[in-house]
Amino acid sequence: MSEKLEQFQRYLNQMEQYRQIGEQMAWDMQTQTPKKGYGYKIDAITYFSGEKFKIATSEETGKMYEEMSAPEEYDALNDVMKLTVRRGKREYDRNKRIPADFYEEMVRASNISSKVWEEAKQKADYDLFCPHLQKMIDFRRRCMEYMEPDKDIYDTMLDMYEEGMDSATIDRLFSQMKEELVPLFQKIMEKPEPDNRCFAGDYDINSQKELEAYLLSYIGFDKEAGVMGESEHPFTMAFGPGDVRVTNHFSRHDAVDAMFSTIHEGGHAIFEQGINPDYVKTAAVDIGMGMHESQSRFYENILGRNINFWKPVYGKVGEILPQFQKIPLEVFFREINHVRPSFIRTAADELTYCFHIILRYEIEKAIFRDGVNAEELPALWNDKMEELLGIRPQNAAEGILQDMHWSDGSFGYFPTYLLGTIYDGMFLEAMEKDLGNVDTLLAEGRIAEITAWLHEKIHRHGSMRTAAETLREVCGQEVTAEPIIRYFKKKYAEIYGVDA
Amino acid sequence: MSEKLEQFQRYLNQMEQYRQIGEQMAWDMQTQTPKKGYGYKIDAITYFSGEKFKIATSEETGKMYEEMSAPEEYDALNDVMKLTVRRGKREYDRNKRIPADFYEEMVRASNISSKVWEEAKQKADYDLFCPHLQKMIDFRRRCMEYMEPDKDIYDTMLDMYEEGMDSATIDRLFSQMKEELVPLFQKIMEKPEPDNRCFAGDYDINSQKELEAYLLSYIGFDKEAGVMGESEHPFTMAFGPGDVRVTNHFSRHDAVDAMFSTIHEGGHAIFEQGINPDYVKTAAVDIGMGMHESQSRFYENILGRNINFWKPVYGKVGEILPQFQKIPLEVFFREINHVRPSFIRTAADELTYCFHIILRYEIEKAIFRDGVNAEELPALWNDKMEELLGIRPQNAAEGILQDMHWSDGSFGYFPTYLLGTIYDGMFLEAMEKDLGNVDTLLAEGRIAEITAWLHEKIHRHGSMRTAAETLREVCGQEVTAEPIIRYFKKKYAEIYGVDA
Repeated sequence: MSEKLEQFQRYLNQMEQYRQIGEQMAWDMQTQTPKKGYGYKIDAITYFSGEKFKIATSEETGKMYEEMSAPEEYDALNDVMKLTVRRGKREYDRNKRIPADFYEEMVRASNISSKVWEEAKQKADYDLFCPHLQKMIDFRRRCMEYMEPDKDIYDTMLDMYEEGMDSATIDRLFSQMKEELVPLFQKIMEKPEPDNRCFAGDYDINSQKELEAYLLSYIGFDKEAGVMGESEHPFTMAFGPGDVRVTNHFSRHDAVDAMFSTIHEGGHAIFEQGINPDYVKTAAVDIGMGMHESQSRFYENILGRNINFWKPVYGKVGEILPQFQKIPLEVFFREINHVRPSFIRTAADELTYCFHIILRYEIEKAIFRDGVNAEELPALWNDKMEELLGIRPQNAAEGILQDMHWSDGSFGYFPTYLLGTIYDGMFLEAMEKDLGNVDTLLAEGRIAEITAWLHEKIHRHGSMRTAAETLREVCGQEVTAEPIIRYFKKKYAEIYGVDA
Repeated sequence: MSEKLEQFQRYLNQMEQYRQIGEQMAWDMQTQTPKKGYGYKIDAITYFSGEKFKIATSEETGKMYEEMSAPEEYDALNDVMKLTVRRGKREYDRNKRIPADFYEEMVRASNISSKVWEEAKQKADYDLFCPHLQKMIDFRRRCMEYMEPDKDIYDTMLDMYEEGMDSATIDRLFSQMKEELVPLFQKIMEKPEPDNRCFAGDYDINSQKELEAYLLSYIGFDKEAGVMGESEHPFTMAFGPGDVRVTNHFSRHDAVDAMFSTIHEGGHAIFEQGINPDYVKTAAVDIGMGMHESQSRFYENILGRNINFWKPVYGKVGEILPQFQKIPLEVFFREINHVRPSFIRTAADELTYCFHIILRYEIEKAIFRDGVNAEELPALWNDKMEELLGIRPQNAAEGILQDMHWSDGSFGYFPTYLLGTIYDGMFLEAMEKDLGNVDTLLAEGRIAEITAWLHEKIHRHGSMRTAAETLREVCGQEVTAEPIIRYFKKKYAEIYGVDA
C-alpha cells in the first residue's frame, strides 16, 4: 500500500469515527435523552461537528484528494476506493466553492427557519413562515450556484439526494403516473368505502412492541445486528451493517399504523444490514434516497399490503393483539388498502401517496424553474390538491405547512419517495421472472427467498452503482413507470372492482 | 476574565465533551448495542480516548496547569476553580510520572487479565487467573510508586477512590465493626429463619419496570432529568445533573432483587441530580466513591429496609405485582432483612455485607503491606470466610473469583462500600436531630423531606468537600463506626429479638 493511500485511509477512519459519535448522539437524542439533558448533547454535537468540519475542509484534505485523484495513485485503486476518492473529491470541491461566511449565514438562517416553521405549523399561520421560506429558497439557489456553477439549479438539488437523477427524467415518469393514476383514483372514489369501525379499540403498547419484534424477524431483520427504539417519528439509523437501528411510534388507539411503520423501517434496515461489510469506511455505504426508499416501500407496500403476506402470520397477530381475532383477514386487507383523499402525506394510502409527491415536485419546479415566490405557494398548493385529490385544505397546517423538509432547505428530497415506488414496480417484475409468483411465495411463508433475492441483486452492492445502473443490471432497462402503473391497476381492479 | 483562565476553560470544555461521548458510548454498549455492533463502538471509544489522552498529557496542558497554579492566576479564582486547578494539576503530575511504555504495558496486561478472569470464574479455575492477578498486583504497586513516590502504596490506592482516606482510619473503623458485629451475627444465627416460600412466583418483567418507575419517582428521582435502562449489572451514569441514568436487571423469579437495585441506583442518581449545576465542567462533580455509596446505601438500606418506608407504598406494590397482595407487609419486611451467611457479596444481606468488605480489605492489606502473593490468596480468603461468616467456599468461583475488581487492578475500591455504610450511621443520627424520627417521616410518606435534607447537606455540594470535611460539617465529628453499630444492634434486636 502506498504511503498516500495509507494516509487517506487514516483520514477515512477518522471521518468514520466522527460519524459514529454524531450518529450515536443523534440516536440518543431522538430515542431517550430526557428533557433536561438535551443541552449536554447539543454541546457535544456542536463541538465535534465543528472539529469534523475543520478536518474535512482543511487545505491538507484538499491536497490529499488531489494526490489520490492523480493517475499514479488513482489507477492502482480498487473500484470501491475509486468511488470513494471520486465522491469525496467532488464533495470537497463543491464545499470549497461555497464561501465560508455565506455557508455560516445559511446554516444560521436554516436553524431559525426550522424553529419558526414549528411555531407556524402549530398556529397554522403561513404568514409567519413565509419570509423564512423565501430566504431558504434564495439561500439554496445561491448555494447550488456556488456548488455547481455550470449546472441547472434544480437538477443539482435532485442529484444531491439521488445521484444522476434529473428533472427531465422525473417529468417523464411523474406525468405518466398522473395521467394514468388520477383517473384510476376517480373510479375508485365512485365505489363504496370499506367499513372500518371494528378497528376501534385500545391496543396494549407492550403487545404492539412484541408484534414489532415478531414482524421484523419475520421479514428478515437480524436482531443480533440491530436494535428497536421509540421516537416521535419512526426512522432507521445505521452504525454499520452490524448495528442498524429502527424506531417506531405507538398509539393505544391504532395498532395498524405501527405495524406498517415497522415493515417500512424494517425494509430500510434490511438494506443496511445487507451491505457488503467490506464497504464500511468507504463511500459505497452512502445509498441514494430513492434506492433506499425503494426497499422500505417494497416491504411496506408491495409485500406488506399484499393479502398473502399476512396469511402465514395473521394468526400470530391475533395471538399478540387479541382484538384482531375478531377481524377477518379480508377486512384487515381492505383497510390496509383503503383508498381515500386526505390532506396529510404521511397518513396517505399507497395510491394517493403518489399524488402528494407529484404535487410537491411540481411546486419545487415552479419555484426553481419558473421563479414562483413563497407568497404564491399556498394558493398553488391548494389548487393542486384540488386538481389531484379533489379536496382543498382548510388551513396551512393541513396544507403547505405540514412537512418540515422545506423549512431547512431540503428541496429536491420529496421526489425520491416516489422514485422508490417506481423502482419497486420494476423490481417486482424482475423478481417474478426469477422467483415466480410473489403471491405464492408470500402465501407459503417463503419471504426469506424474497429477501435473499433483494440482498443478492440490490442490498449487498451498497451504492457501488447509481440507481440507473442498478435498474439496468437488475431489470435490464431504463427507469420506467409502466410496471408500477400496471401493478396499481391490477391491484385496485381486484380490490375495488374498477376496470382499469 | 484573564486570557489564561479563558484558555483553561476552553480546555475544561474540551475535556468535558470528550467525557460526554465516552460516557455516551459506554451507556449504549452496556444497555443496547447489539452483538454484531460492538466493534464500531470499541473502534470509536479507542480513537477518541486516544485523542483525549494526547490532549490531557500534552506539554501544553502541563504548562497551562503551571500557569494556573501560580499565585497571580490562582489567587483570583473562586473556590470551585481553585479545586479544579488543584485536582487537575495533581492528576497531571501523577500521570506524568508514569513512564508511557510502562503505562501501556499495564493497560494491555489489565485487559488480558480481565478476560482471563472471566474465563477462570466460569471454570472456577483459580490457577488460570493466579499469574495474571500477581501481575496486576505488581503493576499496580509500581504504578503507585511512580505516582506518589513518597507515600505508602496502599494509602495511595485508597486515596484514589476516596480522597484523604487512609488505612489507619479504616483499621480503626473496621476492627470495631468486626468486634461488635460478628457476635451480633452469631446471636442471630441461633434464632429461627423466616419462612420465605411465599415469594416463589413468576413476576411479569414489564410490571417490574412499572414498579421501578414508581419507586424512583417516590424517592425523588426526577424523570425529566433521567432515564431508566437495562444492563447485566445495575449502574448509574451521569451526563450532568440534568441527565442521570440508572439501569436495572430483572428476573422473572425474583421481584425483590430489582426493587432494591432500583432504590440503590436511585440513591446514586438523586445525588447526581442534586449537584449544583454550576459545577458542571469542574472537578466539583467528581464525587468520591465512599460518599457516593453512602447515598445509594442510605436509600437502599437505612430507608428501603425500614418497614415504615413501605407503609405508604406497599399497596401500590400489590397493585403492580398482584403476588404481593398475598404477602403481608410484616413477612416482606422479615425477608428484606433476612440475615444469613452466604458466599456472594452482591447477594448478601445488610449485616453480613459488612463482613464481605472487611475480608477484602484485610486481604488487600495483606497483599500490599505484608507482601502476601497471589498463590496464597485462596486459602487466606477461605479462612477469613470461616472466621467471619462460618462458611467455607467449595470452589474459587464462589470465593476469590467472584468479583471483577481485582482483575483489572482496582485495589482499594472495596473499602469504599463499607465506608458509605459507616457514613450512613452518622448521617442518620444527624438527620434525626434536625428532622425528628425517620420512622415517622417514612410512615407518613414524607420521604421528600428526607431527600431535601440530603440535598441541602450533601448532594448540592458535589465534591467541594472531602468526605472528612462533609462529616465534620454535617455531623460535627470525625468519622466513627459507632452510630452504624448502634443502628444494627437496635434493628436486629427488634427483628430477631437478640439482646445487643
